[in-house]
Amino acid sequence: MTYCLGIITSSGLVFAADSRTNAGVDYVSTYRKLFDFVWEGDRIIVICTSGNLAITQSILTLIHNDLHKQEAKNLTAFSSMYDVASYVGEKTRWVQDQQKPWLQKDGIDAQCNLLVGGQISGEPPQLYLIYSQGNFIQATPETPFLQIGETKYGKPILDRTLHFDIDLASAAKCALLSLDSTMKSNISVGPPIHLLTYYRDSFIVKHRLQLKAGDPFLIKFRQQWEIAIRQAFEQMPDIDWGYSAPAVNTIGTGED
Amino acid sequence: MTYCLGIITSSGLVFAADSRTNAGVDYVSTYRKLFDFVWEGDRIIVICTSGNLAITQSILTLIHNDLHKQEAKNLTAFSSMYDVASYVGEKTRWVQDQQKPWLQKDGIDAQCNLLVGGQISGEPPQLYLIYSQGNFIQATPETPFLQIGETKYGKPILDRTLHFDIDLASAAKCALLSLDSTMKSNISVGPPIHLLTYYRDSFIVKHRLQLKAGDPFLIKFRQQWEIAIRQAFEQMPDIDWGYSAPAVNTIGTGED
Repeated sequence: MTYCLGIITSSGLVFAADSRTNAGVDYVSTYRKLFDFVWEGDRIIVICTSGNLAITQSILTLIHNDLHKQEAKNLTAFSSMYDVASYVGEKTRWVQDQQKPWLQKDGIDAQCNLLVGGQISGEPPQLYLIYSQGNFIQATPETPFLQIGETKYGKPILDRTLHFDIDLASAAKCALLSLDSTMKSNISVGPPIHLLTYYRDSFIVKHRLQLKAGDPFLIKFRQQWEIAIRQAFEQMPDIDWGYSAPAVNTIGTGED
Repeated sequence: MTYCLGIITSSGLVFAADSRTNAGVDYVSTYRKLFDFVWEGDRIIVICTSGNLAITQSILTLIHNDLHKQEAKNLTAFSSMYDVASYVGEKTRWVQDQQKPWLQKDGIDAQCNLLVGGQISGEPPQLYLIYSQGNFIQATPETPFLQIGETKYGKPILDRTLHFDIDLASAAKCALLSLDSTMKSNISVGPPIHLLTYYRDSFIVKHRLQLKAGDPFLIKFRQQWEIAIRQAFEQMPDIDWGYSAPAVNTIGTGED
């Protein structure tokens, strides 16, 4: 499995991704899933990948080849992030067309999802989620994050702390906590973690970090969070059992 | 969807369940999913249900009918919780046999999962998860909880705070936080919440609670947790960006 997270705030973007891939429990390996493309002063584009690894690697290789060959359509040629998202969607459709019929014959899942975010000069930062079918949605201030892969374990902390006007340092902290919660609860998501923050209108990557398993900062960060969560838990009141529902020995009436 | 949780500790059992059922987003309704059967001084048996509602209701009705008719096999006749779990598994298999072929014709999911826990005099308390196939697993001190339904959102708080030797009041608090995190992040899980605690060797239900939507305690509990979580979040250090991974414009090498 995989867990990738993109956050958009009023001051920029944060991306976070794990690196664990598994084809069955007996073939667990490490592949990077966060890729950034930077042309300083002009544009920055970040892509995160989840799902079938053969398919997402092909999509990225095609994107890279277009850049290398300076094809008419390549990451430097678009004047909007919407066009970049459409382009990544087209690549996704092309690879799905090539691979999916063969995978389906053997019942293999061809699904993939990608996050595509960044900023092109003249536009505000934007964040998209590209589906397997090549269509896509955009993150908005109301729900300023998008997740792909193993998304559920890491969502509660986002729902409780994240909002569009949060400062970028806090958003990055929130992203790491979301990744860490997922790693703690699900063995299919694992380090190294890649983290990246981008400050709006800077057109450079301010912070880029890779945290390997056993990284002292990662270990300390997790320990501190566990202490903080336990303290939060302990300061919560016990349940008020003041009123009781009746004993029920039959199936419910649906009237509860 | 549904979320039910059973916890076993050295001092007893806690059960928690939501009440939301949906057959598509345009048919959302309320059904109780936590049922307790108490024979004071002798035994207490708690059953929680998830999955296909027609199937789980049938299973419970059959269990109830056996009791009513005093069949040779009924909840009062068994001398061990293992036998109770086997019996519920048999009922599950029987209903699945009756219903599944008809559901499969229309591609309808016949899956169900049940939690079965309690104590019969002469034995310690026990907690089981019954699968759709009628087989089952038992909770142990190493992992003192079992979940069914929409399990992922509520797992991080359990993984961070729960252990076999926790006091029962704290275990109940933990269960409510796990339910609340799930309700906050997933609209398919919703109130009323049913909560029950059972103290080992008491053979009575000490606490039984139904929390409806808008319940003042539930609202205050959630607000307090959100404040506590935000305080925990704020006391965490910012990320140490002291060292950086290189920019990557190509697909990863797998060596991270």
